[in-house]
Amino acid sequence: MELNLMPMPAKIPAKDGKFRLSESFTISVKGQGAPRLYTGATRALRRLSGRTGLFFSQDFITAKSQDPSAVMTIECQRPGKVVLHENESYRLSISTDKIALTAETDIGVLRGLETFLQLLSSDENGYYFPALEIDDAPRFPWRGLLIDAGRHFMPVEVMKRNLDGMAAVKLNVLHWHLTEDQGFRVECKTFPKLHEMGSDGFYYTHEQIKEVIDYAAERGIRVIPEFDMPGHSTSWFVGYPELASAPGPNSIIRTWGVMDPVMNPARKGTYQFLDAFLKEMAALFPDEYLHIGGDENNGKHWSANAEIQTFIKKNKIADNQALQAYFNNKILKILTKYGKKMVGWDEILHKNMPTSIVIQSWRGQEGLAKSAKAGYQSILSNGYYIDLIQPTDFHYLNDPIPENSPLTAAEQKLILGGEATMWSEYVDAENVDSRIWPRTAAIAERLWSPGSIENVDDMYRRLEVISFRLEELGLTHEKNYAMKLRRLINNVDIEPLKNLIDVIEPVKIYTRGEQREYTSYSPLTRVVDAARPDAKIARDFRKLVDAYLATKKQGAAEEINSWLQLWRDNHAKLVAIIRLSPVLQEIETLSADLSALAQIGLEATALIGDGKTANEAWTKEKLQAVEKAKAPRGQTELMIVSAIEKLVKAAGNI
Amino acid sequence: MELNLMPMPAKIPAKDGKFRLSESFTISVKGQGAPRLYTGATRALRRLSGRTGLFFSQDFITAKSQDPSAVMTIECQRPGKVVLHENESYRLSISTDKIALTAETDIGVLRGLETFLQLLSSDENGYYFPALEIDDAPRFPWRGLLIDAGRHFMPVEVMKRNLDGMAAVKLNVLHWHLTEDQGFRVECKTFPKLHEMGSDGFYYTHEQIKEVIDYAAERGIRVIPEFDMPGHSTSWFVGYPELASAPGPNSIIRTWGVMDPVMNPARKGTYQFLDAFLKEMAALFPDEYLHIGGDENNGKHWSANAEIQTFIKKNKIADNQALQAYFNNKILKILTKYGKKMVGWDEILHKNMPTSIVIQSWRGQEGLAKSAKAGYQSILSNGYYIDLIQPTDFHYLNDPIPENSPLTAAEQKLILGGEATMWSEYVDAENVDSRIWPRTAAIAERLWSPGSIENVDDMYRRLEVISFRLEELGLTHEKNYAMKLRRLINNVDIEPLKNLIDVIEPVKIYTRGEQREYTSYSPLTRVVDAARPDAKIARDFRKLVDAYLATKKQGAAEEINSWLQLWRDNHAKLVAIIRLSPVLQEIETLSADLSALAQIGLEATALIGDGKTANEAWTKEKLQAVEKAKAPRGQTELMIVSAIEKLVKAAGNI
Repeated sequence: MELNLMPMPAKIPAKDGKFRLSESFTISVKGQGAPRLYTGATRALRRLSGRTGLFFSQDFITAKSQDPSAVMTIECQRPGKVVLHENESYRLSISTDKIALTAETDIGVLRGLETFLQLLSSDENGYYFPALEIDDAPRFPWRGLLIDAGRHFMPVEVMKRNLDGMAAVKLNVLHWHLTEDQGFRVECKTFPKLHEMGSDGFYYTHEQIKEVIDYAAERGIRVIPEFDMPGHSTSWFVGYPELASAPGPNSIIRTWGVMDPVMNPARKGTYQFLDAFLKEMAALFPDEYLHIGGDENNGKHWSANAEIQTFIKKNKIADNQALQAYFNNKILKILTKYGKKMVGWDEILHKNMPTSIVIQSWRGQEGLAKSAKAGYQSILSNGYYIDLIQPTDFHYLNDPIPENSPLTAAEQKLILGGEATMWSEYVDAENVDSRIWPRTAAIAERLWSPGSIENVDDMYRRLEVISFRLEELGLTHEKNYAMKLRRLINNVDIEPLKNLIDVIEPVKIYTRGEQREYTSYSPLTRVVDAARPDAKIARDFRKLVDAYLATKKQGAAEEINSWLQLWRDNHAKLVAIIRLSPVLQEIETLSADLSALAQIGLEATALIGDGKTANEAWTKEKLQAVEKAKAPRGQTELMIVSAIEKLVKAAGNI
Repeated sequence: MELNLMPMPAKIPAKDGKFRLSESFTISVKGQGAPRLYTGATRALRRLSGRTGLFFSQDFITAKSQDPSAVMTIECQRPGKVVLHENESYRLSISTDKIALTAETDIGVLRGLETFLQLLSSDENGYYFPALEIDDAPRFPWRGLLIDAGRHFMPVEVMKRNLDGMAAVKLNVLHWHLTEDQGFRVECKTFPKLHEMGSDGFYYTHEQIKEVIDYAAERGIRVIPEFDMPGHSTSWFVGYPELASAPGPNSIIRTWGVMDPVMNPARKGTYQFLDAFLKEMAALFPDEYLHIGGDENNGKHWSANAEIQTFIKKNKIADNQALQAYFNNKILKILTKYGKKMVGWDEILHKNMPTSIVIQSWRGQEGLAKSAKAGYQSILSNGYYIDLIQPTDFHYLNDPIPENSPLTAAEQKLILGGEATMWSEYVDAENVDSRIWPRTAAIAERLWSPGSIENVDDMYRRLEVISFRLEELGLTHEKNYAMKLRRLINNVDIEPLKNLIDVIEPVKIYTRGEQREYTSYSPLTRVVDAARPDAKIARDFRKLVDAYLATKKQGAAEEINSWLQLWRDNHAKLVAIIRLSPVLQEIETLSADLSALAQIGLEATALIGDGKTANEAWTKEKLQAVEKAKAPRGQTELMIVSAIEKLVKAAGNI
């Protein structure tokens, strides 16, 4: 039985039979839960109705609506707390005539309901659930997604629909990056010039923040705010220049990168300000943890500031790193006073800091291990940087505690989990979902499921189903693709453009910003923004070519050739359209190269099929063409080049 | 020059030449405007950048950012007020080297910016604007869209994106239907049981109401709330049964239709309650007008209540209608006290009501004329009921003051305009945009442009472009179509299903509710919900057949046949998919009928093409098949039946 579950549960003993879904289906909820237990069950019922078109008679599930004859029963012992280490386990039992979902907490119930929905199946006789038993609990307690609302503002509805997506794949921490050089995104009643002068008008009110936190809590998701300090803080200084280490005036930064402005750690006023600020924010955000950033302070403005240098000497502070630890210790005291625990990036790790802080590792597995060995609780983000446009399997196989981990069992316990990070240099409300999903579902599986579940092919098979299902939550990763193509092509037939963009990807890692200067208001509507990470059609084609070269099966050759013919003939159609869509001119030669590569591929498969070996001149010439096609255009790259290269080499027998 | 403008401006003298758009394009804003002048100009610049991929250097346009060398200048004399009868006129002058937009008010500037954006064009040399002069002003001052958030709640983002759509087509009134038998959707601090017990938790907080009002005002759009009374008010009675005319308890209504519950007009407490309620709402909603509904009170609970009947006799009130006028007069006094003018539906028109009220006509043109003749200001909604799934041209040709209007010039002045009404029995956040757009753009043109602009073909041509452009505002009318198909078909290739749904429409007027009992939580994810009003491919096909039968041109026959072949062969592909998507079973015979009709059409065009006449038996048999295909299935109907019928009749020469 192939189940389309993600994350895959710890245990799934299958049984025989099917539970048939009909319009008389009802759910009864017993036990002690917060309101989320009932609203969560009601939402699940609605989603089931939406997928099947069935008119269930049950309206809103409430504490009062217990139906002793209900075919599905939900039971939990207590309301869960939306805190680290809460029990999220559940047990789902499906037999041919009834379904039982049990959990210690209502949060466990929510997790189980998502599994239940993923199990919906259909055949000629209608919709059903396969009979089985699932016993499930997460491997790591901290499974997060960072959304950077600092560089590009993310409206409330973006946060909400992504919280729904997170809940669907059992993530439980929203890390909300709220302040950056490019924007201060939260209303501050104590220091209103922070949001008034630092945000261009794009910030969340207190009510909106509460709305998002409530929405998250309804789904059993913690919300951890990040206020990045002492660096990444230019937007603070627009209204409050006295906080900075260099003289102002400052204005909101419009470009990307590591900036020099940094808070002044030698000034008492800085701490008085941050005390009042954090007091307000500690009250606004209920989670036990608060993230202070701490990353990428280049120290230039500290070194250039005579007063700060004097301060360092006077207080026998070793260097800028130690000065930052001094600053962090002061902040830690403030946070402790307001009942919060501190989280920060790698850089806050310093011998002068106590082990009560949590380290988020963006630099690498080694940093993570070092941090755990030093006794700090840690979470992994290196390898989960979804803004860098790397393929899903790269993230999927990145384990916070790999099999060869040098950590002892006790040290391993300090690894709390991980977080995917959606940094927002190149995403806005329109395309952010397409960078988060579906790849983040695979990361969610890595953090929830046993480490032994690591079959990449099976992950990709399930990912496709999960990705499609996420659409019912309002996520736009699928539907905005065609929308962006329509705009690019001025609403003529998108097919030729889609054929091209289906097999290209944005350039990876940090190349995009190196190739072209972007600002925070540059358009994110070009081909590179429509193109998606881990392009499925290109990935499937590469796999197909590998399989063909391994087996030389005729069927595979035919499938390859039908793709190649499509691509070979595509450029002629697209080039006419490009004439009327100037925004597409930047990929005209890329489109030509796709056609040329396809022609080369056809010649290669013909040679291979005939059992012939290409002559040296042909092979050399074609490999040169392949090499040329590797160049990015419009900040995108063709993802079938390596497969064509393999075909040419096979044809040339080299 | 074919311009893709909608609404079409009053005057457009074209000039020679093109203004070429480049990355050095900048806008300078002069004059006195509210902040909306600058944010509006900045949004226009971003949209221009989004469509063209151009990296403009200008970031945020502010009062300080006046660039004397800017190629586009915007100038207005004063901040507009977001009130009835505000000046919305503008003048747009485009020459080859500069663009000037001038208006008396900043609201006029916003209207002009939308025209400016609609003028963006492209050719081989890049993007440009055609040189021209536009002098434009609206025909009617009240151009509205009603959104019913009572029957199905519409989240804030639905309201916002539709406000953007409204602004794009120069609508200026959002009529927000906030209370219904099925839900009380606004937080009430005075009587919190209204929203707490009457909404299932789906209501707007005061902050969210303000957020929407501010968003609308930024776009020069008024927001008029409707609190329907004395009928359509069951949700009020759940928390406050003493307001009702019949004994409780009441619960939120889950079905559709006209309900009996009605406020008790004979009780002093009712008016004390409404006074306090309207005081709070009058402060929350800044517009001068407030809508009290007043429609569809069937009077049953009044007739059945002995106390109310005694009250009628004692106060010499003629009948239930007069009793409602008594009630309305009491409400009018309350509204006047709080500085508001009253708007209501046809039913509030009564000889006992003063002419200071505004009548919204849902019953018909006659009611509208009668109302104007009686001296009342009026707005037309009959003929703009977009929930009834009628074709665009039906709405488009529905003029508030038709050429043959019986009204005098003075009476005509009382016709303020009209409103499209998006009643929400069968729409939710996912499909509401597809019922509003693009048809509402044509209604917007009817209310803005001169009455002489009424070419239906040209309207449809422009509508297609405008509809596509609305997507950039986040509207989902296009993109949710494919999404809904993917869900229906369980994410296999949507093409065969799309071929069918492209030529069907939901059943019209009130048929849907007559065919099947719906509740407020019934799924809106079936074929009927994916199908769209005024199906374009079917409409184009019908037109093609008409043209062919008129001219018998070979080219038309070929085009017809290529559609018919597609449809003929479609069922075989779709039927295999239906096996695995039980939700599609309800349209299986409809799909079979489409194939059968296509086969009939092919036979008919062959006969016609050969100049032959079909024999009587053939004609009779085919017309029977055509008749059978007219039956709705899955609450949808095939929209190419009439065209096939014409072909058969032409072939049979009858």
